[in-house]
Formats: sequence, C-alpha cells, structure tokens
Amino acid sequence: MAQDLGEKIEGSKDELLAELNEFLRMPSISAREDGGAEFRGCAEWVRDKLREAGAEARIMETDGHPVVYAEAGEGERTLLSYGHYDVQPPEPLELWESDPFEPEVRDGELFARGVADDKGDVMARIQALKLYTEEHGPLPFKLKFLIEGEEEVGSPNLAAFARKNKELLSADACLWEGSMKDDAGRPMVFCGTKGMAYVELRARGASHDLHSMYGGIAPNPAWRLVQALRTIKDERGEVTLDGLDALADPPSDKDLEAIERIPFDAEAMKASWGVESFDRELSERDALREMLLRPTANIAGFHSGYGGPGSKTIVPGEAYVKMDFRLVSGQSPGPVLELIRSHLRKRGFEDVEVVDLHGVEAAKTPVDAPVVRTAVEAWRAVGNEEAVVYPTVGGSGPTSLIATELGIPTVMAGSVANIGSRIHSPNESARLADYYEAVRYFAAFFGRFAA
Amino acid sequence: MAQDLGEKIEGSKDELLAELNEFLRMPSISAREDGGAEFRGCAEWVRDKLREAGAEARIMETDGHPVVYAEAGEGERTLLSYGHYDVQPPEPLELWESDPFEPEVRDGELFARGVADDKGDVMARIQALKLYTEEHGPLPFKLKFLIEGEEEVGSPNLAAFARKNKELLSADACLWEGSMKDDAGRPMVFCGTKGMAYVELRARGASHDLHSMYGGIAPNPAWRLVQALRTIKDERGEVTLDGLDALADPPSDKDLEAIERIPFDAEAMKASWGVESFDRELSERDALREMLLRPTANIAGFHSGYGGPGSKTIVPGEAYVKMDFRLVSGQSPGPVLELIRSHLRKRGFEDVEVVDLHGVEAAKTPVDAPVVRTAVEAWRAVGNEEAVVYPTVGGSGPTSLIATELGIPTVMAGSVANIGSRIHSPNESARLADYYEAVRYFAAFFGRFAA
Repeated sequence: MAQDLGEKIEGSKDELLAELNEFLRMPSISAREDGGAEFRGCAEWVRDKLREAGAEARIMETDGHPVVYAEAGEGERTLLSYGHYDVQPPEPLELWESDPFEPEVRDGELFARGVADDKGDVMARIQALKLYTEEHGPLPFKLKFLIEGEEEVGSPNLAAFARKNKELLSADACLWEGSMKDDAGRPMVFCGTKGMAYVELRARGASHDLHSMYGGIAPNPAWRLVQALRTIKDERGEVTLDGLDALADPPSDKDLEAIERIPFDAEAMKASWGVESFDRELSERDALREMLLRPTANIAGFHSGYGGPGSKTIVPGEAYVKMDFRLVSGQSPGPVLELIRSHLRKRGFEDVEVVDLHGVEAAKTPVDAPVVRTAVEAWRAVGNEEAVVYPTVGGSGPTSLIATELGIPTVMAGSVANIGSRIHSPNESARLADYYEAVRYFAAFFGRFAA
Repeated sequence: MAQDLGEKIEGSKDELLAELNEFLRMPSISAREDGGAEFRGCAEWVRDKLREAGAEARIMETDGHPVVYAEAGEGERTLLSYGHYDVQPPEPLELWESDPFEPEVRDGELFARGVADDKGDVMARIQALKLYTEEHGPLPFKLKFLIEGEEEVGSPNLAAFARKNKELLSADACLWEGSMKDDAGRPMVFCGTKGMAYVELRARGASHDLHSMYGGIAPNPAWRLVQALRTIKDERGEVTLDGLDALADPPSDKDLEAIERIPFDAEAMKASWGVESFDRELSERDALREMLLRPTANIAGFHSGYGGPGSKTIVPGEAYVKMDFRLVSGQSPGPVLELIRSHLRKRGFEDVEVVDLHGVEAAKTPVDAPVVRTAVEAWRAVGNEEAVVYPTVGGSGPTSLIATELGIPTVMAGSVANIGSRIHSPNESARLADYYEAVRYFAAFFGRFAA
C-alpha cells in the first residue's frame, strides 16, 4: 500500500504550479481551424512532460488533432487514463477578469481557460506519476495515458482511433476525466453517462410562406410537428415513444441504493434555475431518479415561421424541431432512431423527416466494480469528505467509446474542478488547494490500483 | 342610366396613362420614417387631381400620414370610395427588371410599385369621375373619397379618423379597394373580410438555457407550448377552442349559394403551393367553404431554443408562438381573446402568457345588398366576363372600420389588378387593358349607383 505523498507535494507546490501554468498558457483551442501549429506544440509539450515523469510517450496521428499516448509502470493490471489537452474558446473575452491564457491566482483560486476542464486534471495525473515514481519507483501496474485534442469539439476522431487501437487501449479499468466536487465540497464519483440520440424533425408545407388567409386549408408544418410531438409525450408530459422503455436495462439494486445515498438539494437547484417546481411537479427524489435512470425526450429547439416583433400573417413553409433523447444503458442510439421513425410512421407522419444528427452510447460501470471502490478509497486516503457515488449522470459523452465499445469498466474521479468552476465560461477557475489535493488523490489512486 | 364611356376613354388613353405614371413616380412608401415630405407632396397631388375632376378636396390630418378627403356630385344617395395613396417598400431592388418608380410598359403590362395596389385603382376612380362629369355633368349622388396614406403599414390611424369623422364618412354604401381578376380573367367582387385575433403565446422555463442533462426534470417551455397547442386543435386538426363556434353568425343561404357558384381551381392552387393535398385532406369544395366560412387557428411562428446547424443540447429558457385566428362575422377579436385565455386557464396553463398583438373585426355585407348588385351590373355594362361574387375572403383588413363599425354596406370591386400582379413583390404590374377597363368600370358603376 502506497504511502501518502502529502508532504512531498507540500514541498513542491511552486514547481507543480509553475508547470501547470506553463500548460495553461498554451491556447490549444480545438474549435479554431488555424490551431494546428499551437496544437502540435501543446501535444509535444504534454508528451515531453510524460517522458520527464518516466513514461514512454508519443504523438499519434488522427484525422484531426493528434492524440498523446504514453505508458508507464509494469504489472499484471492495466489502468487507462483518459483526458484532453484542448480547451474551449475563451470568448466572450470582455467578461474575463484576467487574461484567459495568463493564469492568475485570486483568493486561493487559479483563473485560466482549461484549468478545470481539463488541463488541471491532465497535469495532476502526470505529476502524480512523477512524484510517485520518485518516491516509490516504477508503478506496479501498467498505466496507459490517452490524451486527446478534440474533446471540446465532440471527439470527432476518437471513435475511429479507439477502434483502430483496441489492443493498445486494452485495460482492466479506465479513469476518465470530468469529475468535480459538489456544492458542499464532496468529491463526486461518476460510474456512467447517458447515451443520446439527437434528431431533427422536419416538416414542410407549401414551397414558400403563404398568406395566412389560407391558414385553414394550407398544410401548416408547425402544426404538423405539434401533432407529431403530441404522440411522443402524453398530456401529463410522460414520454410515450413506442418501445423505448422495453430497451432499457433495469437499474440494479445497488444503483438504486447508491441513488438513495446521493445528497440532492432540489431547492438549491430550482432556485438556481429560477423555477418553482420541476417538470411535472416531480418530487425531489423522483427528480433525482428521473435524471439518473430515465430516458428523456427533450425539445432543444423549435423553429418555424415568423419570430420578429409584432405580427406577421403567414402560414410557414417549413418547421424544424431539434430533440435530444438522453438514453439509459441498453437504449442504443441506432435502435432508438428506428423506434422514433417507426413510431411516427405508424401514426401517419411519413411526411415528417427524422434526421439523425448525433448518436452516443450510454456508458455504465457497476457501482460495485473494483475501480469504483479504488476511486472511493483513494478519497478516504487523502482525508477528504466521503465521496458520493453516482451510478450515472444525466449528461452524455465519449466515455461510451471506452466503457461500452471496448468494455472497460470506467469511472470519472479526481476532482480539480468544483461546481462553481465555470467550465466553458469566462473566468474558469479551480481552487489551488483542490489542485494539490488532486495530485495527492491520483498518487493515492495509483498506489491502490495494483492492490 | 349612364352611357358607357368606352369611346371617350379610347380617345384619352395617352393622357390617362401619363397622369397615372406621374402618380406612380412618387415613392410614397409609408413604411419609411423619413417619407414625410414626399408623402405630403403625394397627398397634395391627389387632392389637386380630385379638384381637377370637379371634387371639393382637402387634406385632413391624422397622427400619421394625412388623409385626402373629397366630395363630388349631389343627390339623395351617398357612396363612399376608399383607397390609399401609399405603397409598399420596393425592396429587394435587385429583383426588379425596371425601376419601381419609373413606370415601364412591357408586353401590354405596366410595371411600377403601386400600380396594382392601389394607385391604379385610386387614379382610375378619379379619372372616371372626371370623364363622367365632362360627359354627363355632375354625379346625381354624393361621392365621398377617403384616400389614406397608411394602408400598407396596417392603417394605424384610420380607426381614430373614422370614429372622429363618423358624420363626414356616412354613406349608403362603400366601394372599397382590393379587388382583382382571377386566374381565368373573371372580375372578383368581395362582400366581406375575415376578422382576426393575433396573439403571442409565451412560456418560460429556467431563467437561462440549461444543459439538456436536465431535460427530464427542468420545465421545458417549448414542450409547454406544444401541450397548450394540443388543446387548441384535436388530433385530426380540427379547431377545438372552447366557445369559438358559438360566437359565429351562421352563413346565409345566399352566402352558401354564392359559394357554390365560385369557380375554384383547387388543383391549380395546390400546384402553386407545391403541395399534394390541403390540410386535413380537405376536398375542393370543403376547402373553399373552410377558407370563406370557418375561423382558423394558424401558427404563424414558433420559436424556442437552438436553431442553428447541427446539435446543441439545451433545455430552452423560453418559447414563443405567434398565432392568428381568422374570424368570421360575429367573432369579435376582444371576446375571442378572452376565449383563448379562459380556454388555457381552464386547462391549467395559467403560466402561458397570452399577449394581444392585433385585433381586426370581420366585415360582412349581404351578397344581395344593392351595392353588390351595382358592382355586378357595372361589370356586365363594360362587357366583361360575369363577375364572381365572394361572400367574403379569407383575409382581413380595415374594411371592418367602415362596414362593421360605421355599418355601411361595403363591396370590393373594380379590378385593375389580377392574380399575377405581384402585389407587395418585385415587378408589380397591371395590364394596361385592365387599367382602361377599370376607368370604364368605375364610370359605369357611378352611372348606376344613383338609379
């Protein structure tokens, strides 16, 4: 059992921070088309840091920005560590209190684009490897780093990369990024993500907008989509898509128990949204279960006809609805897309086009998987509040490429970020104390993983 | 009985056209805020033309652009003639084949902004008065001209003007603008317009767009409006607004007979729209009855959330639906607005705001009113195809200010325009032959009105 690296980290704070700051100064904005040279430089810098930490590291090409891959340690077990070195664009710049690419500490918080998502996390893991190795020698298991450069633009090349490098990425477990601390400071450990089928429903009426004197006789595509949507939820707002529930894997008893233990402040959530009640007046516990265990049929956008000030009297020529169906384990986006199409077809909506915009598999690792236990025990080892285990989260992501497609138990743990870190927003930040703690946490995690 | 002025008009074509062209060269665009001086000049020009035709004419102020008012003739009966000297903006200019304010004749058609709506009509009436008076002396009835300058921006000051000048505008009948010839060249005579209640439905969810991981528990205002709308039409698309039908005046037997006589080319209409069937697969005759006799609940716009390319995963913070309810006689917009509000309230949609954007009364003159007979007989007198009498049209307009509020039987007749005149669009035009015929038509109408 590895010794806690607390003292060593305490004595290296300045160097650790200086190194992180160097990383944060590189504007590796994947959404910018001209980011090529900077990207390459940032990827090479990460590779070099991994080498300094004792790993065998290299750049691997994709059809987009390159992946940094590395291996360290040796042993029977293998841990895959996923992170990303790209960041969101910093705009709107005028809302930043300091330069997004010139890290600044204010009141114990470090402000910079990427500090919470995901450079702090990536750096903390590399530094944990380095300090661990200095203190204890090589890791007693094989640690593989997969650090991509396109997470903030939807990981368009990660699926192809993962399929092509199945062997290289094989592991007993995966430590994913994206965890954080909740509003009471408790570390969150996530064991899954929802899947998603994102579709656009399109209806067409006349070839052009018509004078609304024809409103009683011309096909109205906005009404058409309202009529189609009314078959997808009933009057009470319950999802009524044919066959959707039947696909779902039922939650395990342990999932349900874990959910019961989640501290959930419904009043705070409603207050932050400025609403008085949840959809369908769901109770606090029902809302939590709904968010974690149930698929959704969300309207993300509905656009048709006139939207300017005042009145314009037209029958619109076309209408579009964007919908994301968040899916639970068992509900793959491909079959769900077919359900949507056959559901509408069966009810006479052959004219409503269902465009497949995006599909993501759900990811689900059992809450009692060894890697989840390791994640929780590592939190105890660094003396933090008891971690809260979430069987899944309401969001979706590329986690499924590893957890579902490659079948590797995956956990999101290790919280540089907190709920107020303003991820993707101006003034992104992380608490310095949380950063140093994360280095300790990852070292503790590594120390326990082989056990 | 007045003699047909055919020969006199035939000998004056050049002068008549030159005068019309002078009118068409004035860019009296009411939608332009800086149109003041040009407006005043145009109004004064119209006043002077009326004086040249023997009328007592004057400018009357409103809170917007001025009205031109005139009187001519003397007798027991009084006819009010309504038209407007303002025009729609010409944009997009690049689509015009000739300058919108430099009239040009091509293949027997005169191209200019306003020639079909409504300067050709206004000029033809003034010229008819002048030629009639030259030939027969003063009109044997009192003819009142009401020529406004804000019709193309929704006549915002006409109601106040009409209420203030009730006595001045009193008449036995009113000859409105807005008629045209149908696609087979038959003159159309309209005896009414639909009313309208134009509302915006507004729903709000969270104070800002939320991540759609909350799609199952956050109030979604787009879904909320879909749920509200599903109470306004049933699954078959029939309007189900509480109490709407009960307000409607039933159509008269004569209305129904007139509708049976209307030649209606449903296939041509569907082809021009690029659709294969009407809403609810209405038959040809049902579509015509629906358009002329039934109220509508049209969605003119629905906007909420993301509408750009690809996918964005949000729960929108707000949603808006614009609806125009076209109303038949008896369904006043005020009471209908109350129906909409109580309908939604009764079903638990107190949170959906119903904003009153616009209200117009229906106008209805009996198809057997004397002024309708005069309109039809005048078409026979000029030797044209038999006119087609429409008990009403699907559109709405300020006609109701005269027909409903002042109770003056009103007919829309005298067709400078035809169905291909591109009213409000680039390359607005009227056939020159139709223009000269309109002068003859109005002279024939005047000759018969006193009889």
